[in-house]
Amino acid sequence: MISNKPELSRQIRETINVDRIGRRLDDLEAIGQTSEGGVTRLAYTEEENEAHEYILNQLPDDYKVTIDSIGNIFATRDPDSDHSTLTGSHLDSVQNAGRLDGTLGVVISLEAVEAFHRVVENPELPPTLVIFRAEESSRFGQHTIGSKAALGKLNREILSATDKKGVPVWQAMKNAGFQPNDLSEPTLDFNRITNFFEVHIEQGPVLEAKEKNVGIVSSIRAPVRYRVTIDGKYDHSGATSMNLRNDALAGASEMIHAIETVAVEASQIGDVVATVGDIESVEGAINKVCGKVKFPIDIRSDSLSFRKKVEAEILDQIRLISNRREIATHIDQIDESDPVELSESIRQTLLKSAEETGCDYCVLPSGGGHDAMNFQLEGIPTGLLFVPSIEGISHNPAEETTTEGIEEATETLVNTLVTLEQQHQA
Amino acid sequence: MISNKPELSRQIRETINVDRIGRRLDDLEAIGQTSEGGVTRLAYTEEENEAHEYILNQLPDDYKVTIDSIGNIFATRDPDSDHSTLTGSHLDSVQNAGRLDGTLGVVISLEAVEAFHRVVENPELPPTLVIFRAEESSRFGQHTIGSKAALGKLNREILSATDKKGVPVWQAMKNAGFQPNDLSEPTLDFNRITNFFEVHIEQGPVLEAKEKNVGIVSSIRAPVRYRVTIDGKYDHSGATSMNLRNDALAGASEMIHAIETVAVEASQIGDVVATVGDIESVEGAINKVCGKVKFPIDIRSDSLSFRKKVEAEILDQIRLISNRREIATHIDQIDESDPVELSESIRQTLLKSAEETGCDYCVLPSGGGHDAMNFQLEGIPTGLLFVPSIEGISHNPAEETTTEGIEEATETLVNTLVTLEQQHQA
Repeated sequence: MISNKPELSRQIRETINVDRIGRRLDDLEAIGQTSEGGVTRLAYTEEENEAHEYILNQLPDDYKVTIDSIGNIFATRDPDSDHSTLTGSHLDSVQNAGRLDGTLGVVISLEAVEAFHRVVENPELPPTLVIFRAEESSRFGQHTIGSKAALGKLNREILSATDKKGVPVWQAMKNAGFQPNDLSEPTLDFNRITNFFEVHIEQGPVLEAKEKNVGIVSSIRAPVRYRVTIDGKYDHSGATSMNLRNDALAGASEMIHAIETVAVEASQIGDVVATVGDIESVEGAINKVCGKVKFPIDIRSDSLSFRKKVEAEILDQIRLISNRREIATHIDQIDESDPVELSESIRQTLLKSAEETGCDYCVLPSGGGHDAMNFQLEGIPTGLLFVPSIEGISHNPAEETTTEGIEEATETLVNTLVTLEQQHQA
Repeated sequence: MISNKPELSRQIRETINVDRIGRRLDDLEAIGQTSEGGVTRLAYTEEENEAHEYILNQLPDDYKVTIDSIGNIFATRDPDSDHSTLTGSHLDSVQNAGRLDGTLGVVISLEAVEAFHRVVENPELPPTLVIFRAEESSRFGQHTIGSKAALGKLNREILSATDKKGVPVWQAMKNAGFQPNDLSEPTLDFNRITNFFEVHIEQGPVLEAKEKNVGIVSSIRAPVRYRVTIDGKYDHSGATSMNLRNDALAGASEMIHAIETVAVEASQIGDVVATVGDIESVEGAINKVCGKVKFPIDIRSDSLSFRKKVEAEILDQIRLISNRREIATHIDQIDESDPVELSESIRQTLLKSAEETGCDYCVLPSGGGHDAMNFQLEGIPTGLLFVPSIEGISHNPAEETTTEGIEEATETLVNTLVTLEQQHQA
C-alpha cells in the first residue's frame, strides 16, 4: 500500500469508475419504475427483493455474502478478518421516489469497497458492504427497521406496526422469505465492526446553495414536535366588527409568522429549523370568522440545549399571542427525540480525506434521520457523507445530484477506509 | 287617531303583546325541529309550507290573503287601499338553524300590523304583512329568491340553480304547489307599495357589545371576495435552512396577519371588516415545508369607496409580502357586489320613532344581506331594524335575543307605520 498521500489519492481516483456507478443507478432505477418517472420500492416488496438481488449479482465472485434473519445483506471479501468497517445504505424507497435516496449510498459503497481492494492488499480492516432493509417509513410508519435489527434494537411495537392493508412488519418479513427470530439480538458482530459509513443525498438545499460537492455531516438534527389547537369563536364575517372577534385563524397566522421569525433569528446564532408544514381551519368558510384551527410544529437542531431554548421561545410567543387575543390554545407535544452527534474522530478523518482528495466540501448537520444515526447511538463511530440535492428536491422523481458530488464523495469514502486501514496497521 | 305622541306611544305599547310573539315563536320552532334542538326549514320544503300555513291560521278572519305565483304571502286588512306599506321577512331557514332568523321578523310584523289597526281607524296607508319564500341560500346556493320574485328580479340563472339532489329552483317551486310563470314581471304592485320594513336578528355581536336593544340599519355591507393561491417550494422540514425556504404557509400566515392589521386600523376610521375564514395547505405535512396554500378573503364595507381603499391596501400588502419572500401569489376576484344604503328619510323616521318610544337604540350597518336589500335596490324606500344576537350567534340552534329587543323593535316599527300614515294623511 502506498503511503505517499497524493499518489494514493491519484490511484484511488483512477480506480473509481463513475460511469459504472451511473450504470448501476440506471439499472436500479428500472426496478419499481412508476408512470410518473419515479421509483416505488417499498420495504419488503418484490421490488426491494429484486433490487437486493441486483446488487448481489454485481458482486465479484470472491465476495462472501451473509443475509441476516430479516434480509439485510452483508458482503465482504474477507469474512474471516477480526475487524471490518461497514459501509452502505438502503434500497427501499418511498412511493414514487427519486432514484438516489438510499440507492446511491449502496452503489457508491460497492464502488468504494472494490476500489479499496484495488489499492490495499491483505487488509487487516477490510470493508463490508451492507444493504439495509426498510429504511423508509412509507410502508409501515416505522423507519430504519433494517439497521435497528442489525443492532438488536427491534421491538414488538416496530414489528407489529402495519401497512395500509393491515400487514404487520413481521408478516411482511416472512412473506419476503425471511424468518424474524429473536430480534433483541444484533444480527451483526459488534466486536468485529469498528465503524459505519453511509453516503446519502442531502435532501436539502444547503450544499447547492454553498456550491459544495460533498457534505461531511457533523450531527443529525432531531425533532421535537407539537400539535397546536386554537379555539376562538365562529362569527358572521360580515356582521362581526374587527374589535369583537376571537379569530382562531388570524391568531394561528400570527403564531406561525412568529414561529418563523424566532427560528430565522435563532438560526443566525445556532443550528435550528422550525416548520409549520400544515394547517387545518376546522369548518372554515369564506363567510365565517374561523373558530377552530389546528397546526403542527416541527423544531429541529443538532444541539438539544439550543433546541430547548428556541422551543421555549416559540411556546412563549404562542402563549403571549393566545392571551392577548383571548383565544384558547392547547399545545401537545407529540414527538421528541434527541439529536445525535456523529463521531468526532471519524469526522476528523473524513475532513482530512476530503482535503487530501482535493474535494470541495463543507460540514453541515443532517436534517433527516438515517441508518447512520442508529449506529452512532449504539456507540459505533459513524461517518455520514452527503452529495448535493439539485434544488433540494427529495422523495420526488425529480431528485438529482451532480457527477462531481458522486465522484468526490466516493473518493473521500475510499480515502477514509484506506486511512483507517493504515491507522489500524500502525 | 291620537296625535299626541307620548299618548300614542303608550297606546301602542299597551296593544303589543310580547307573550303572543313568544307563543308564535314557540309554535313555529316546533315546525322542522332537529335532534340538536335547532330548526331546519329549507326553502320550498314541506316544513316551509307548514310554517306559512301556521301564519295564515294566525291571521284575523277579515284579512285578505294573496299568495303569488311562487308562494310569497301578502296579507292585509285593506286590499283596496291605493297605497300600502309592506312589512315582513321569511320563514325558511338554514340547516339546523336557530328559531329567530327570519321567523322573528314575520312574527313581529304580524304583531305590528295588528297593533297598527288597533290604534289607527280607516287608514289610508294600511300595512301589508309579507312572508317571502327562500331567503336563505342553503338549499340552492341562491339567496332572497322570494323577494326577488316579488320585485320581478328572478332570472334563468337563479331558477335553474339546483339543490344537492339536482332539483332546480323552478321544479322545487312546482313541487311545493306553485306555478312560476313569467317571472320577469313583479308579483307585487309597485304603484301601491310605498315602503318596505324588515325586522331581523343582528347575526353579529355589535348591539350586545354596545348594550343596545334595537339597531337601526344604515346600510348593508356588500362583500368583495378574493381567492389567493400561493406557490412556494416544498422542502424537507429538517434539512432546509430557514434562509433557503420559500415557505407558502409562512407567507400566507404573514399575509393573513397583515390583512387583519389593515382591517383593524381601517375600521377605526371607517366601516370595514376583512376576513380570512378558511385556509388550505395543499399536501401539507408535519415534516415538509409547505409549497402551496390557498385562502379566500372577504372584505365588506357600507361604503364602496372606503372598501376600495382598504381593498387596495390589502392587495398591496399581499404583493409586498409575496415579492419579499419570492413566492408566486395569484389573486382572483371571485365576487363583488355594491353596498346598499337604505333610505335616509325612512331612517330618520325610524330614529324619531325609536326616540319617541324611549327605545335604547343605535345605528349600525348590516353585515349580511336581507330581503330589505332587494327592495331598496328597486327604489322602494326601505327600513331594517335589528334585535341583538346573544353572543353574536347566528345560523345555530343557540341563536337567541332579548325580550327588550323584541318589545322595543316592535314598538318602533308600529310607531313608524303610524307616523307614515300620519304623514300620508297630512
